Amino acid sequence: MTDYSSSSSSGVATEETSSLIAASKVEGTDVYNRQSEHLGSIYDVMIDKRSGQVAYAIMSFGGFLGMGESYHPLPWRVLTYDTGMGGYVVDLDKSRLEGAPSYGVNDEPNWQDRGYTRSIDDYYGVPPYGGI
Amino acid sequence: MTDYSSSSSSGVATEETSSLIAASKVEGTDVYNRQSEHLGSIYDVMIDKRSGQVAYAIMSFGGFLGMGESYHPLPWRVLTYDTGMGGYVVDLDKSRLEGAPSYGVNDEPNWQDRGYTRSIDDYYGVPPYGGI
Repeated sequence: MTDYSSSSSSGVATEETSSLIAASKVEGTDVYNRQSEHLGSIYDVMIDKRSGQVAYAIMSFGGFLGMGESYHPLPWRVLTYDTGMGGYVVDLDKSRLEGAPSYGVNDEPNWQDRGYTRSIDDYYGVPPYGGI
Repeated sequence: MTDYSSSSSSGVATEETSSLIAASKVEGTDVYNRQSEHLGSIYDVMIDKRSGQVAYAIMSFGGFLGMGESYHPLPWRVLTYDTGMGGYVVDLDKSRLEGAPSYGVNDEPNWQDRGYTRSIDDYYGVPPYGGI
């Protein structure tokens, strides 16, 4: 995620280049692990209404035309954009992905439940989103 | 799977209810001003790749089937969700909207330019996004 590809060396105090991306462009972006295996693609992102913080990216995985597909919520901070790969990279081997929190297309989790979101954060070893 | 349908009322110090919304559900949501006039609807959101912060919501305005449409970037923090209205409310009368930063469908601004994003923030009187 940290895209510090600027070549600025002027040492100015303010960052003059932003790094904004449209949600519509995030969606559909491929996700790989560090072994360059394709894991899935970004289906949606979950935004904290209060803070405006993107808490999770929802990766779709497997399936064909929506059948047999499953969704894996990934804490936003575990994703790193790799310009060479043209996608996000997450440190997650396939066996670990199998045990990760996921849900089916018709099985939307209760996103209002902090216990659920914390179970995602715990699995990936990141602090609970929102810093509460 | 763990049942997280908690009805806890223990009054613990931590916030047990999150307020997450999918970007795909933000998109298409109507936007009104404080006079309950319909201004447009959310077309997309711009995410800061580094921080994961939603910096702007892009409101589409006018037009028909994409023709004559224009986009108004609004700092995320000026939007308040109103459950009664079923949409976002922004303190912006129509005459002020006319002078607001906007662009046409085929006229994508340079989102990497901090000068551009600052002009949006300045118009709406909010601090530059990202807290730089």
